[in-house]
Amino acid sequence: MPKLYHEISMSLDGFVAGPNTSLEQPLGEGGERLHEWATGLESWRESHGKSGGRSGRDDELMQESIDRSGAVIMGKNMFGPGPGPWGDDPWQGWWGEDPPFHKSVFVLTHHEREPLRLSDTTFTFVTDGPESALEQARDAAGDKDVQIAGGASAAQQYLRAGLVDELFIHVAPVLLGGGVRLFDNLEGADPKLEPIEVVESPAVTHLRYRVS
Amino acid sequence: MPKLYHEISMSLDGFVAGPNTSLEQPLGEGGERLHEWATGLESWRESHGKSGGRSGRDDELMQESIDRSGAVIMGKNMFGPGPGPWGDDPWQGWWGEDPPFHKSVFVLTHHEREPLRLSDTTFTFVTDGPESALEQARDAAGDKDVQIAGGASAAQQYLRAGLVDELFIHVAPVLLGGGVRLFDNLEGADPKLEPIEVVESPAVTHLRYRVS
Repeated sequence: MPKLYHEISMSLDGFVAGPNTSLEQPLGEGGERLHEWATGLESWRESHGKSGGRSGRDDELMQESIDRSGAVIMGKNMFGPGPGPWGDDPWQGWWGEDPPFHKSVFVLTHHEREPLRLSDTTFTFVTDGPESALEQARDAAGDKDVQIAGGASAAQQYLRAGLVDELFIHVAPVLLGGGVRLFDNLEGADPKLEPIEVVESPAVTHLRYRVS
Repeated sequence: MPKLYHEISMSLDGFVAGPNTSLEQPLGEGGERLHEWATGLESWRESHGKSGGRSGRDDELMQESIDRSGAVIMGKNMFGPGPGPWGDDPWQGWWGEDPPFHKSVFVLTHHEREPLRLSDTTFTFVTDGPESALEQARDAAGDKDVQIAGGASAAQQYLRAGLVDELFIHVAPVLLGGGVRLFDNLEGADPKLEPIEVVESPAVTHLRYRVS
């Protein structure tokens, strides 16, 4: 059965975004340091419509992850800034006309909205909860896995519900000292973790855990 | 030049002890889960006066670490419970008549006390600050390195002062959800981390960083 996995870059002190996230700094202060290992990779650049970039083990892992998921789930905060209804000129995502997903993306939100198609990415807005989003994402993914892309709050909802099969955490060699913690708000949920793969590089340490 | 390194077991969510540390539960609720990978190892058992135990890569790393340090620094909270003066019948440490260190241990405290010798471990109580403790520990260690054993507060003092050369973190596949965080209270100190070694085992992931 296809898996539900959460993949994210985290600082060694547990943050997936820095403090004071905003329209100008969607990753918060210093948050871009979590992704420095990724943004120069060939696979990352290709998914963002750019050529060139570094190859190697980090790049292979990134490409495997891109290929592995048939659909993506994200929280409203990852799709756009601020809470509240979409309004007359609704936010189109952070990523411009050609978002880097190139597959179906399901956005958890409290506010209804028609699907948004940008190039080969379709954003579907799901208002009836994470289980419904997962069901729709599984349908869209077919035989492939479903990725929870973030943010922390979306991941926490699925961890609390016991629905996550795997965590794939890229530990950046960075201490942010503040911001958004990946593992806050588990509210007594006690997911069991089993290490299944560790890959090191000079830039980042990749930790893969089975979750049960 | 010999190095100052901090070695500690940490949960994936960043805790080095669980919540509600006490005389009965010095590692807090659930904190013993951070050390399960270690307590069955041959090297750990030998240092604790026991025979038998598991060998393998985790055990080799533990033995290397035991051999590597010529002196140990710890905070008052790691040596014993509660703040305040030592009193007439002073606390002798958590470890009984034959503590597992077998070398000089320097305890950071605000309260003077004569050195305490138990078997081949000598506890020296340092009241004039972390730099002084480090100087004394370096003298005692000779050509060997100095280990900061814990707890978090002691490690944070040395990180803030920019004195730590290396972090050796054993990431236990555990989410504690609360407790004492290793990387709290850095107060704007921004240590630079460089991954230098990663070792995986089914029980724990060892991450070694150079700090500058």
